[in-house]
Amino acid sequence: MSSVYGEHLKLSIFGQSHGSAIGMTLDGVPAGLSVDLEALNVFMQRRAPGKQAYSTPRAEADCPEFLSGIVNGYTCGAPIAAVIQNTNTKSRDYSNLYDCPRPGHADYTAQVKYKGYQDVAGGGHFSGRLTAPLCIAGGLCIQWLKQRGITVTGHICSIAGISDIPARIDPVRPQLQFSDPDFPVFSAQAAEKMKKAISDAKADGDSVGGVIECVIEGVPAGLGGPLFGGLEGKIAQAIYAIPAVKGVDFGAGFDACGMPGSQHNDAFTIENNTVRTITNNAGGILGGISSGMPIIFRVGIKPTPSIAKLQQSVSLSSMEEKDLTVEGRHDPCIVPRAVPVVEAAAAIAIFDALLSNY
Amino acid sequence: MSSVYGEHLKLSIFGQSHGSAIGMTLDGVPAGLSVDLEALNVFMQRRAPGKQAYSTPRAEADCPEFLSGIVNGYTCGAPIAAVIQNTNTKSRDYSNLYDCPRPGHADYTAQVKYKGYQDVAGGGHFSGRLTAPLCIAGGLCIQWLKQRGITVTGHICSIAGISDIPARIDPVRPQLQFSDPDFPVFSAQAAEKMKKAISDAKADGDSVGGVIECVIEGVPAGLGGPLFGGLEGKIAQAIYAIPAVKGVDFGAGFDACGMPGSQHNDAFTIENNTVRTITNNAGGILGGISSGMPIIFRVGIKPTPSIAKLQQSVSLSSMEEKDLTVEGRHDPCIVPRAVPVVEAAAAIAIFDALLSNY
Amino acid sequence: MSSVYGEHLKLSIFGQSHGSAIGMTLDGVPAGLSVDLEALNVFMQRRAPGKQAYSTPRAEADCPEFLSGIVNGYTCGAPIAAVIQNTNTKSRDYSNLYDCPRPGHADYTAQVKYKGYQDVAGGGHFSGRLTAPLCIAGGLCIQWLKQRGITVTGHICSIAGISDIPARIDPVRPQLQFSDPDFPVFSAQAAEKMKKAISDAKADGDSVGGVIECVIEGVPAGLGGPLFGGLEGKIAQAIYAIPAVKGVDFGAGFDACGMPGSQHNDAFTIENNTVRTITNNAGGILGGISSGMPIIFRVGIKPTPSIAKLQQSVSLSSMEEKDLTVEGRHDPCIVPRAVPVVEAAAAIAIFDALLSNY
Amino acid sequence: MSSVYGEHLKLSIFGQSHGSAIGMTLDGVPAGLSVDLEALNVFMQRRAPGKQAYSTPRAEADCPEFLSGIVNGYTCGAPIAAVIQNTNTKSRDYSNLYDCPRPGHADYTAQVKYKGYQDVAGGGHFSGRLTAPLCIAGGLCIQWLKQRGITVTGHICSIAGISDIPARIDPVRPQLQFSDPDFPVFSAQAAEKMKKAISDAKADGDSVGGVIECVIEGVPAGLGGPLFGGLEGKIAQAIYAIPAVKGVDFGAGFDACGMPGSQHNDAFTIENNTVRTITNNAGGILGGISSGMPIIFRVGIKPTPSIAKLQQSVSLSSMEEKDLTVEGRHDPCIVPRAVPVVEAAAAIAIFDALLSNY
Repeated sequence: MSSVYGEHLKLSIFGQSHGSAIGMTLDGVPAGLSVDLEALNVFMQRRAPGKQAYSTPRAEADCPEFLSGIVNGYTCGAPIAAVIQNTNTKSRDYSNLYDCPRPGHADYTAQVKYKGYQDVAGGGHFSGRLTAPLCIAGGLCIQWLKQRGITVTGHICSIAGISDIPARIDPVRPQLQFSDPDFPVFSAQAAEKMKKAISDAKADGDSVGGVIECVIEGVPAGLGGPLFGGLEGKIAQAIYAIPAVKGVDFGAGFDACGMPGSQHNDAFTIENNTVRTITNNAGGILGGISSGMPIIFRVGIKPTPSIAKLQQSVSLSSMEEKDLTVEGRHDPCIVPRAVPVVEAAAAIAIFDALLSNY
Repeated sequence: MSSVYGEHLKLSIFGQSHGSAIGMTLDGVPAGLSVDLEALNVFMQRRAPGKQAYSTPRAEADCPEFLSGIVNGYTCGAPIAAVIQNTNTKSRDYSNLYDCPRPGHADYTAQVKYKGYQDVAGGGHFSGRLTAPLCIAGGLCIQWLKQRGITVTGHICSIAGISDIPARIDPVRPQLQFSDPDFPVFSAQAAEKMKKAISDAKADGDSVGGVIECVIEGVPAGLGGPLFGGLEGKIAQAIYAIPAVKGVDFGAGFDACGMPGSQHNDAFTIENNTVRTITNNAGGILGGISSGMPIIFRVGIKPTPSIAKLQQSVSLSSMEEKDLTVEGRHDPCIVPRAVPVVEAAAAIAIFDALLSNY
Repeated sequence: MSSVYGEHLKLSIFGQSHGSAIGMTLDGVPAGLSVDLEALNVFMQRRAPGKQAYSTPRAEADCPEFLSGIVNGYTCGAPIAAVIQNTNTKSRDYSNLYDCPRPGHADYTAQVKYKGYQDVAGGGHFSGRLTAPLCIAGGLCIQWLKQRGITVTGHICSIAGISDIPARIDPVRPQLQFSDPDFPVFSAQAAEKMKKAISDAKADGDSVGGVIECVIEGVPAGLGGPLFGGLEGKIAQAIYAIPAVKGVDFGAGFDACGMPGSQHNDAFTIENNTVRTITNNAGGILGGISSGMPIIFRVGIKPTPSIAKLQQSVSLSSMEEKDLTVEGRHDPCIVPRAVPVVEAAAAIAIFDALLSNY
Repeated sequence: MSSVYGEHLKLSIFGQSHGSAIGMTLDGVPAGLSVDLEALNVFMQRRAPGKQAYSTPRAEADCPEFLSGIVNGYTCGAPIAAVIQNTNTKSRDYSNLYDCPRPGHADYTAQVKYKGYQDVAGGGHFSGRLTAPLCIAGGLCIQWLKQRGITVTGHICSIAGISDIPARIDPVRPQLQFSDPDFPVFSAQAAEKMKKAISDAKADGDSVGGVIECVIEGVPAGLGGPLFGGLEGKIAQAIYAIPAVKGVDFGAGFDACGMPGSQHNDAFTIENNTVRTITNNAGGILGGISSGMPIIFRVGIKPTPSIAKLQQSVSLSSMEEKDLTVEGRHDPCIVPRAVPVVEAAAAIAIFDALLSNY
């Protein structure tokens, strides 16, 4: 079991929520790719906490500091390493989590796996904070993909069961303009309802989840492969690294399961002397290989497990049931902040597939 | 991009639908595990074609022949290799597929990736037939998991939009008895409706898809890990190797996205001096690590792309649109036969996780 | 621990000496590479046993049968699988090897690792026979390298302490013509002495080893990388997969350790508008990366452990010392047959490095 | 090509000689292993520069700063990340190295591979300074091996062609006491000669190399495996990551190539109810698997390529020959400082093999 991802790239993510720093190393990146650190910081800010009413008040700059791999604005071929100092850690006592695990969290499973040696402070290595280094790697990949005409865009399909209108984009000709890039939904009305649901959950000491859709445009046909080399599996593996993800489907996905084949099969056509499909139920992937159509997938995000409400847990020492109230700073809904994280993970998968394609 | 899977195990699947043989090598299996070849053949038969009205008439024995790795009924520590001879290949002319790709198939994307050198006969390496060697590997892993008290059971949630009643099992105390193991649904009435939908599709030259749920009981708490080492990603990667899979979700999955956290979080309890959860929305995985509760996930299977109906395709040589009628022997619905394949892929993932757990 | 090699390629070797077949799968090969099966068989014959007075009388055709991955003389992009049937296995009783391990063989270490479940017949998975599938994979890579102007040539430096004259080739402008390609030495006189040493060893129930040098010409500058990505480590890892190899050094190698830097450093020069070095003590690799000069390394082959002489072993059941006489068909010297195996392993490493170079 | 090593462990090394920091991440380490940071610093000091007359005057503390993975003196199961700040970098102008590569260095090959984007300052990612993070990882592994009764000890066999007396240890019952742990040779007289050769080389603007032998005691029988899983290949791959290594052999190694099999085969015997061998020409590895005897291998270190003497190089822009004088702070001999680096690399390989052994 490891925190390393990639075939040609090797991405390693490290750090614990309340350790001295978190970070990543990214190996296998070709030399000579330009890096725009300012653009990266702008991207990182989309994930950063503390900006909005509905997100955790833990505010950190989250500016990556690069230790290696970039010289004068270009990759130099050596592994890229970057860290983010943990500046806003609270020296609260977390030790009760060893005995009384929080429902929906990794406390219990980490206790079994790491036998009490795991770092529980702030969630340790399981913290959503570890998605920051994922965004460093992904933010870089997004830049390098963009230089090849490939864009990665996520948006919110639903929060707390409230769907955007439309809930999904046009998979053939995606229109991806959003008035608020920090809350990318099409309908202002739906956005209001979603935000209210988040506020209500917060007021209630509760939390909500949602669904994110991600669109990757400009991927050339021919990336990926059959069986274990398929793009779906490769993307899914990257996306499932994001804590709180419990579902990933591609194209029409689970909705396709009730369609007849004659409806689901995407008929081929020619546009501007290019092979395209009239519909895109396949989500841009056929036989595990990109078709040149937009790659589209959805990600199901469970409601944040950290809630203020009283919950039932157990004491692992006495093996008896025990009530638990979780303290700390929590997002009542991580879905908006998860949008750039999904984009980051997707970009890493696509960039790796691109490099693996001889 | 490769057809190799695993961290501790290394599974390599090879063969083309109409080549001389298909097969697999499985490396990293400890020595001394007993192998019941008869039980494996029984398992293989659940995937084998030609048994039922609703499946392809291509009938092959599909008995694996073991070349190495097993001595006197026990693994010997050396890589296990097994092949299945392709006996029932029809020497039809497939060459038009290079020019006129079938909608919903890998013909077009393979043409781009392999530049016309791919084997198109019967779908080549993209054929559903390649799930037979997956079932050899998975069938062995199922036996070895069973020897450790772990069982893997799939069932059909829905076909053609017709849901079983209930559509999902009880995730806390799964009851998994099915009257017809080749068509595992709870409700006889639902089964009839599903079978009729398949027959109707067949009569109509069409096809249907469906949803499979898989339950893994007996997995000890502590398998998997955070980030890229998570069990969800590991299982999803194996499942997405199955052609036609377009969605995978865990536990309450996409349905969980509308729940509040207070409902979704699984409260801990003690039963028989063991930590369990009262509900199992997490599907047995917390923080990427098994919790000891049943591992539960759903798999969305798209409708079989091979349909007899006239479809629109293109000619890649003339770059013009062109009507296409696909000939050959096709399953109007692969969902029932995909159930053991899902079990096989899941078993490989879990057995690999078990071996990777020091 | 696995029998899988490669970064971009994935080579898996399977089989036991006296199982039904041995073979290999090679994944990650691009589509469209031509394959000359006749040339491959000619290459395989260089390794095949039974041809000469000094090699084992076990004579097998050792013609690979391809199951997948090659269509009409070209790779199709799917994994290549090939097997060699084991036709000449003797059903001798090998069971005493479980109790009384042969000195110099893997019998004891396999017994500890595989707890008595290992296949000991003919050496099982540890047999030198497993170098035949290595030669299938390597023989293919040699063809594909040749198509890119890269040649791989091994020759014998010494056998039984008798050195060829010269013992090493000119590393800057290698001359690699040998009168007997099955016994590639420069000096006919040295060849006679070596053959006599082999015959003497055979008559004496003993065995001899030797040193092989391998030269790879035409490798473009720029393959490999620093640290764990270095070509030396990559080649060494492939070469050490050959049973009986106990040493690998590059360029001037161990002989360089006594040189001053001013002598060892290869001065740069320009020839035909190309950067070259005047000497080639580096063996064509600087900083783990190919320099464009011939890649040169030596391989130390220990004397064949199978000897007819009485040896001292132990009984693992009674834990007492015990005399042992090893029966069976043995090579008194495997060095000549190991030459193509070294070429094969080197070719696999270089072809993998070539594919991994974006 | 990557800077990542390991099967169960994943070690990633990053940094450039004159970047802001160098470091490593080590993933896959079990939780609950104790870490003695003071002992690690003592180990690091053995590699640190600036201590002796014969090493580079670049003096840096080289104390690793741990960012993650260790809590209260124990591993917590999360990836371990550590950095060393580069404090003593000189802002010299290195830009001429892009045009005029130093003989024996990676300047030319890096230029070809990275197309001028590589970091040349101080050798960049190719610098011997990158062995410091290797020593962090290896120093930790040495501690964890020691906790299991396994010790790793290197010593100097020869420098500048001057052999220690004896040049090699007794491979059956190694005696490894050295009066000067920073210059581990048996004979005080030989040590003096070696040191004089280093001083002479320095005075002459030249450099010298040497041979290191490494002994690993206490490794249980059964680690490793056949073919690509062999311990020799695994260790060699780790050792070849050390810049300047050009040869690795095991046990009697290249010296064994002239022995008859009857002399080379290590006869088995029983000592204290344990299977051992009377000699240890195999260097503790049979069939790629540890035998329980001391694992012994030699490492050939080329003379430091950085010398003050005038050398011939070329101008890559004008493609003409050009004289070159290399400036900077150089070790006339890195062999003594390479001893702990060899130990570190070996420890990483063995600890990985130990974890990979189910």
